[in-house]
Amino acid sequence: MKIAQVAPLFEAVPPKLYGGTERVIHYLTEELVRRKHEVTLFASGDSVTTAQLIPITHEALRLNPDCIDPLAHCIVQLEKVIRQAKEFDIIHFHTDFLHFPFSSRCDTPCITTLHGRLDLPDLQPLYNEFPRQKVISISNSQRLPLPQANWIGTVYHGLPAGLHPLQEGNGEYLAFIGRISPEKGVDWAIQIAIECNCPIKIAAKIDKVDQHYFEKHIAHLIDHPLVEYVGEINEQEKTSFLGKAKALLFPINWSEPFGLVMIEALSCGTPVIAFKNGSVPEVIDHGITGFVVESIPEAVQAVSRIKQLSRPAIRRVFEERFTAGRMAEDYLRLYIQVLQDSHHFRATSFPAPGRNNLPAGAEVQLKKE
Amino acid sequence: MKIAQVAPLFEAVPPKLYGGTERVIHYLTEELVRRKHEVTLFASGDSVTTAQLIPITHEALRLNPDCIDPLAHCIVQLEKVIRQAKEFDIIHFHTDFLHFPFSSRCDTPCITTLHGRLDLPDLQPLYNEFPRQKVISISNSQRLPLPQANWIGTVYHGLPAGLHPLQEGNGEYLAFIGRISPEKGVDWAIQIAIECNCPIKIAAKIDKVDQHYFEKHIAHLIDHPLVEYVGEINEQEKTSFLGKAKALLFPINWSEPFGLVMIEALSCGTPVIAFKNGSVPEVIDHGITGFVVESIPEAVQAVSRIKQLSRPAIRRVFEERFTAGRMAEDYLRLYIQVLQDSHHFRATSFPAPGRNNLPAGAEVQLKKE
Repeated sequence: MKIAQVAPLFEAVPPKLYGGTERVIHYLTEELVRRKHEVTLFASGDSVTTAQLIPITHEALRLNPDCIDPLAHCIVQLEKVIRQAKEFDIIHFHTDFLHFPFSSRCDTPCITTLHGRLDLPDLQPLYNEFPRQKVISISNSQRLPLPQANWIGTVYHGLPAGLHPLQEGNGEYLAFIGRISPEKGVDWAIQIAIECNCPIKIAAKIDKVDQHYFEKHIAHLIDHPLVEYVGEINEQEKTSFLGKAKALLFPINWSEPFGLVMIEALSCGTPVIAFKNGSVPEVIDHGITGFVVESIPEAVQAVSRIKQLSRPAIRRVFEERFTAGRMAEDYLRLYIQVLQDSHHFRATSFPAPGRNNLPAGAEVQLKKE
Repeated sequence: MKIAQVAPLFEAVPPKLYGGTERVIHYLTEELVRRKHEVTLFASGDSVTTAQLIPITHEALRLNPDCIDPLAHCIVQLEKVIRQAKEFDIIHFHTDFLHFPFSSRCDTPCITTLHGRLDLPDLQPLYNEFPRQKVISISNSQRLPLPQANWIGTVYHGLPAGLHPLQEGNGEYLAFIGRISPEKGVDWAIQIAIECNCPIKIAAKIDKVDQHYFEKHIAHLIDHPLVEYVGEINEQEKTSFLGKAKALLFPINWSEPFGLVMIEALSCGTPVIAFKNGSVPEVIDHGITGFVVESIPEAVQAVSRIKQLSRPAIRRVFEERFTAGRMAEDYLRLYIQVLQDSHHFRATSFPAPGRNNLPAGAEVQLKKE
């Protein structure tokens, strides 16, 4: 299948630093290429991929201090996609809604994975205006604010199976990874650890906008003897950091649409104790891969029961539900379904003699049904 | 002629507060309606117009504290324009570049007036990508950073002739209007006034982002006995404020693309002493409507020569060059030219038997040539 992947330009694919969306696009793209699909990636020029790269900017916009108006580059990207649109069987956008006026008129089927939070009031009139845009959620919970959108599926994120292997979790500490910001709940994580009398290691970056929050609300908590702040860690360091932890604490107080760090922990066999918010009940199998809790006392109790969970069983659930391979399969199924709908639509509306809009792979799949 | 005007959504048309672009769109729209054209205005729902209003948002986005993602509304606006595009003879955008992927493919001719500064590096790749987009500058100077763009004309802004009538300028003070921000040069204005030993009145708003600049660099200057800070003034107050001034000081230190306040002063017959930057040499006729200077001593000398200029002569230049009527005529000439080009293009490329793409008014004009 000839597939276009359209990535945000703020980070490279994969990102050099933080950037969950670009990382997931990278995993998906590489899996699709491995399955012999012809993938074209529209992304920043410092991206690294086995797909064909159409570089839009010299480097990721977030790293470019001269970038004042990122929208100008996003429009250039959209224009380049439009010019090549006919070459693809399907175009998969990961860039919010900028393309909607185009994708709703494009002959090539277009789908959009929405990676962000959708509870802004500004999005209501937008999705009222575009009720037929095919959109994909990264959790069912993410959809709640926009029931009017044309949801064609939920595809949970996935990681390469070999990225973070199963480990023993014998470090005897609780782990926290994330930005230091109010919605990530690092203060609650520390409180839980202290009440359990268990060491906690915090791997976190502090964004400029969160500096004040850190100094006012968090800095003094980190002085506690049970708390160790290890700063920002990279992908390689994550494996050992998560793999040695006896559990990951994920005490978020916002509707996180997915939460990649949960499945990074599961990949190592590390259970997750998470607050019931956003995607959490969909990602964590309560009592198997961790505990979904609703208060700090419940979280403290969960820590005391953590040894009841089997790390190899957690890893098995990860392999079943959260690998990049599974993610790619899910997307391919949706691509086929969209192509089938579009084929059906064209066959019934505009018979185009001698032309089959479906690629070879799609036909095989369709014939099976 | 059936004309669509597409306005920014940040302020109403006309704006309730500050908002030069929306004000100019208002004057243009009303003039076009007065000339019996069928004008449709795509703007915020609190706009007030004699044209047909297509309201995009309930109110101007800048006044809506719930608005976090203005781009969502801009996309809704673009979609509504696209859906109606066929109903218009021409679509006139005032909304930067968001529509370029659409307007470059639209059967209805589209033109765009660029109202902002164009010296951002981000705009270079954008205009390289869209070398055929028909764009209009508000001064020739504004074009300089983007020689690669398809400039089809410069149209200077205009004001309704009766808005600020000719006055005597017998207030014996110098006037300054503008934001208190480094590029507007209020500190230089005060210095000029003090060196001339002449009172200065400052009508200015202080944006949140400029509060620090005001406190650190300007507040102490305002304590001088020659300086009077009168705060932000409205349209009505402007007439007397400018009309009584013996001159407007416009000591900008950036490339202002137009500078509406200069022609507001000229409308009252008030001369302008302006620094040679951006549009200034195009707007001010040196020695007739004011003085174009390059330093504070030159400005001080200009103040001493101000009585040599004739206020009725300044008003005459305003009436010739800077009324809304003249602006509307200029735009209509460009509309006709664009329609003529598009007609020629269609006639030679895609002969469409039995259909004339030109509106009646345009034909008359074309026949004259």
